[in-house]
Amino acid sequence: MKNPESQTIFFKKKPHIIGSYSIVGPKEGKGSLKNYFDYIMKDDLFGEKTYEKAERKMVEQAVMGAVCNAKLTPNDLQLFISGDLLNQIITSSFAARAFDVPYVGLFGACSTMAESLAVGASLVSSGYFDNVACATASHFSTAERQFRYPLELGNQRPPTSQWTVTGAGCCILSSKGDGPVITSATFGKVTDFGIADANNMGCVMAPGCCSTLVAHFKDTNTTPEDYDLIVTGDLGKLGSEVLIDLMEDHGYKLRTNYNDCGQIIYTGKQSVLMGGSGCGCSATVLNSYILQKLKQKELKKVLFVATGALLSSTSTQQGDTIPGIAHAVVIEAYDPLPKPKKTKKGASK
Amino acid sequence: MKNPESQTIFFKKKPHIIGSYSIVGPKEGKGSLKNYFDYIMKDDLFGEKTYEKAERKMVEQAVMGAVCNAKLTPNDLQLFISGDLLNQIITSSFAARAFDVPYVGLFGACSTMAESLAVGASLVSSGYFDNVACATASHFSTAERQFRYPLELGNQRPPTSQWTVTGAGCCILSSKGDGPVITSATFGKVTDFGIADANNMGCVMAPGCCSTLVAHFKDTNTTPEDYDLIVTGDLGKLGSEVLIDLMEDHGYKLRTNYNDCGQIIYTGKQSVLMGGSGCGCSATVLNSYILQKLKQKELKKVLFVATGALLSSTSTQQGDTIPGIAHAVVIEAYDPLPKPKKTKKGASK
Repeated sequence: MKNPESQTIFFKKKPHIIGSYSIVGPKEGKGSLKNYFDYIMKDDLFGEKTYEKAERKMVEQAVMGAVCNAKLTPNDLQLFISGDLLNQIITSSFAARAFDVPYVGLFGACSTMAESLAVGASLVSSGYFDNVACATASHFSTAERQFRYPLELGNQRPPTSQWTVTGAGCCILSSKGDGPVITSATFGKVTDFGIADANNMGCVMAPGCCSTLVAHFKDTNTTPEDYDLIVTGDLGKLGSEVLIDLMEDHGYKLRTNYNDCGQIIYTGKQSVLMGGSGCGCSATVLNSYILQKLKQKELKKVLFVATGALLSSTSTQQGDTIPGIAHAVVIEAYDPLPKPKKTKKGASK
Repeated sequence: MKNPESQTIFFKKKPHIIGSYSIVGPKEGKGSLKNYFDYIMKDDLFGEKTYEKAERKMVEQAVMGAVCNAKLTPNDLQLFISGDLLNQIITSSFAARAFDVPYVGLFGACSTMAESLAVGASLVSSGYFDNVACATASHFSTAERQFRYPLELGNQRPPTSQWTVTGAGCCILSSKGDGPVITSATFGKVTDFGIADANNMGCVMAPGCCSTLVAHFKDTNTTPEDYDLIVTGDLGKLGSEVLIDLMEDHGYKLRTNYNDCGQIIYTGKQSVLMGGSGCGCSATVLNSYILQKLKQKELKKVLFVATGALLSSTSTQQGDTIPGIAHAVVIEAYDPLPKPKKTKKGASK
């Protein structure tokens, strides 16, 4: 790393996303991206006896689906990087039993998809691994009863709350191939603006997101205009508005090329208050709509910023405020032709 | 990675451990390694109102201590990698607020010290970061009430149980320096031998440990005799015996150069049943006794294998068996002289 204050690493050998898969619950399957998901579950128990086991099975299917999409077998994987919202990330660790592959468990709450891509891309780019699976998942029913109230209580939801997406996504990163490439990654710092309301995740995560975005633009010497799409993890309506304000304070205008996975995934008519959240939110939006548009080259350069709120029910009960974090990766459509007509090389990238 | 079946990566540019720090509770401060720890707390609330907040403060102190030991300031850190046993790893994430440094949260249960070193060493070795802090912690009172029973219940402990170490450890990895070097890392696979007894962690983790050790010896073309010390995370008495048996089935004899952090940390007279456990167990043993012996070159080549049981109270309540995992790193004493016959100083760096 050249500049010690930089939070961003640039990949010389750029890892390709050679396979991807998204699986969602019935509610998400009625949302705006219903035509982009690989699989829509008919019911959110997915044939299992508990929601936790369903969530685990979703990750297994996401990994298998992404491996097949990459035209590989699970034996070709050299590393499985995954994390989720459940205590001791049991979704990921138990799903890892299904694959005879070395496993790195992560926790970044809803920032996990970007965190796993940042770590995975670093390990592939440096030549240590050739094929790495990066996955995450969330499930409305497991998250709700773990972080808030028993489902049976039918508790009323405050207007600032978001709806945890039932969904899992997986990317296969590879040193070879012709899928979209990850060109840089910005590792986020933990921020805490003193919000203690566990029903207002958007406002908790917006400062962390702002911190990572500002660092990213500075480190890469870019502005928001340099991206076809800047997409945040799951800030929801309120969080996105807060982010836009915070970014403006830092001199950056987020315009029409900015969107939020929590707002994209559901239609305006679905009852989700501020929008979607959960690790599965950004994971399924990335592994459906965004990657398809990158493959079709309708999008050429995407800044994917997944955001996480790092609370537990214990920390909330002990009166702690809630730290937030965001990690970012730049994903670009793969252009195998090195732009020959220019006279000077290197100027373009 | 040359061999697609290999679980081990070899570091061309070997990261140095340029700083370390260990902090333990009063009970550990009366154990076998009492003269090696950097700080022994007088009481395990550490001036805080809850044990969770004490655990968090221990990580903060471990990171600051290791940074000082490395003759750096927190501003010199470029990445903080940490994980712990608590739900949503609040110990690590909340401690990360204290440092203005990018943060990667991990979860590998008690394997976290080795997992963070493996990931951290990869990121330093590949040139992406110069100074990275790798930390973890556990606390008897937070773990006990989260995974088992309220402390006030005074519940009897089954004979196979282990005692969660109250302690935190931190290593500072750097691309430069003259501390011990990490030469390779073996990423473990998740194994599950069908044990569902949450009070028998040693037997849960031994198969995962065996799997990683066998992979390591094969990948590196070494045998147990090639190491001055092979030290497992926290298998305890019973788990260590199971490991020795399992390794013998694979043709490897673990002899007098084998030991287990869970057995080293307490004296035989302390009431800890099968020995120590928890992320803090291997972290504090590594960051005290082992690293001191490596610095003094009394140990030259150590295979450090931290082991984790990937359960949650939810998975146990749902009747799941318990997956185990182990990650390994080889740490070698740093010999700046490239072994020529010439006795010129200064040229070595």
